[in-house]
Amino acid sequence: MSVSHSVSTPRVAAVIGLGSMGFGMALSLKRAGLEVLGADVSPEAVARFVSEGGRGFTNLPAEIGEAEIVVSVVVNAAQTETVLFGPEGIATKMRPGAVFISSATMDPAIARRLSARLEANGIHYLDAPISGGAARAAKGELTIMASGTHAAFAAARPALDAMAAKVYELGDAAGLGAAFKMINQLLAGVHIAAACEAITFAAKQGLDLEKVYEVITASAGNSWMFENRIPHVLAGDYTPLSAVDIFVKDLGIIQDMARSERYPVPLSAAALQVYLAASGAGMGRDDDSSLARLYAQLSGAQLPEKAE
Amino acid sequence: MSVSHSVSTPRVAAVIGLGSMGFGMALSLKRAGLEVLGADVSPEAVARFVSEGGRGFTNLPAEIGEAEIVVSVVVNAAQTETVLFGPEGIATKMRPGAVFISSATMDPAIARRLSARLEANGIHYLDAPISGGAARAAKGELTIMASGTHAAFAAARPALDAMAAKVYELGDAAGLGAAFKMINQLLAGVHIAAACEAITFAAKQGLDLEKVYEVITASAGNSWMFENRIPHVLAGDYTPLSAVDIFVKDLGIIQDMARSERYPVPLSAAALQVYLAASGAGMGRDDDSSLARLYAQLSGAQLPEKAE
Repeated sequence: MSVSHSVSTPRVAAVIGLGSMGFGMALSLKRAGLEVLGADVSPEAVARFVSEGGRGFTNLPAEIGEAEIVVSVVVNAAQTETVLFGPEGIATKMRPGAVFISSATMDPAIARRLSARLEANGIHYLDAPISGGAARAAKGELTIMASGTHAAFAAARPALDAMAAKVYELGDAAGLGAAFKMINQLLAGVHIAAACEAITFAAKQGLDLEKVYEVITASAGNSWMFENRIPHVLAGDYTPLSAVDIFVKDLGIIQDMARSERYPVPLSAAALQVYLAASGAGMGRDDDSSLARLYAQLSGAQLPEKAE
Repeated sequence: MSVSHSVSTPRVAAVIGLGSMGFGMALSLKRAGLEVLGADVSPEAVARFVSEGGRGFTNLPAEIGEAEIVVSVVVNAAQTETVLFGPEGIATKMRPGAVFISSATMDPAIARRLSARLEANGIHYLDAPISGGAARAAKGELTIMASGTHAAFAAARPALDAMAAKVYELGDAAGLGAAFKMINQLLAGVHIAAACEAITFAAKQGLDLEKVYEVITASAGNSWMFENRIPHVLAGDYTPLSAVDIFVKDLGIIQDMARSERYPVPLSAAALQVYLAASGAGMGRDDDSSLARLYAQLSGAQLPEKAE
């Protein structure tokens, strides 16, 4: 162990992507005693992180080489690839033996490809999609669906412990974490669409929607998403906690995977069309429960409006 | 109060339809101290009921006039209409002031029509779809989604108390109970199809299905139906607890309602196609989790087989 890593010197981690999830994860790492570098293209996001005592960058700096652990919290596979192998890519800047923890939801085949390419550079890759919202990210209570080599897990452990309440270890190869996450996203995406189809159908029939919520959440028709998202509809509040376009992306990945594997997904396909319609109608950046507003627009159903 | 209803003489109820649900409901009524007449077209079902000490009939007998409460536990609206107004129909045999508790899942518009016709005969109608399986029916722990006049509720109360752990009182007119039940069935039907689409997609990718079940039931992709039905798939056991054809029927009602109300239901419509395919492929009377077997047949995915 070098002098710079004696017990009195904190270990260094980096977080790339300081959005609502990445920001909270970076704070969780700091709270666990790591020194944290944070990078984001948004100067506002970086300033917010610096004000919390972090070292901030609006590019992918050479300083990333100080980090033993790099956590990537970008939006998708394309951004992950750019972070690693783009013109400013960090694959050549990371120190040998460091680990890249990849959190973006993506096609498992792409996770396998990125992993193979990075491991060839002597750097570990942990396929580690996350679930849980911004609030749980800030508290270090995420759920992480992880897969990778034993060495990747070992190198990532201090960060996993700091960021997550629950880490599923899903196998010794990249791609398994991504595959589990996609199964979850298939279900989550269909359930939100079904919840919105159902609650607006209830509105169309003039049912008492608060009563519908009470009955369904206690019945066999319940889902985690119905219980979590329908309160937004009842409050008429579509402030984005998770946006429609997230599921345009994730159900799109499902379609691509299913087409490539010759596997029919009629439910997910129907759900994607509803998300696309909501996004096309201008609600792409609104809360995903906005699908209820789309059903209302299409049918003349009356949904609750937000109290002023 | 007439002599025949002194405290020492039990009140009389009748149950029409002694299938897995009706049989349990009849036993719950007996346990609560009511004298119970039971009718079913199946001699075996009637014999089973008689062996439990009930008075059984394979037709709709004139003795139904003894009952203050008639519970109808038939399959659908058409059978309910036959029970009431068919050639042997009981609408003209029931005693004035008695209540007809209608449990079949049906289009709310039909429930309103049947109710109006029966109430014109001086007989109360309680729109009272049930949920919960045969085990809860036998224990008197069903959930009932009920609507009807105050008089109908009052007359039905001893039976409701005997049969249900939870009675939702959803309004003072028939049709509301049916509408709430249909919202539940829309969600339940879509969630089973989504669960089967997801678990078989996981199998197609070679994931550890027990692990998928563990992760999903603890994640945002969970639903009551995923948690309840996927164990059948993991065990390879498609013994019918609830059959594919139940959802062919119920999602069919959703389609009819939605078409008549000009309300689009793309998720329910896609789900119905999957149930139809499973039924058409010969699995109509198997457990509704058989949709997973359909997905496997269509894609070459390997699902667990039943241990011998």
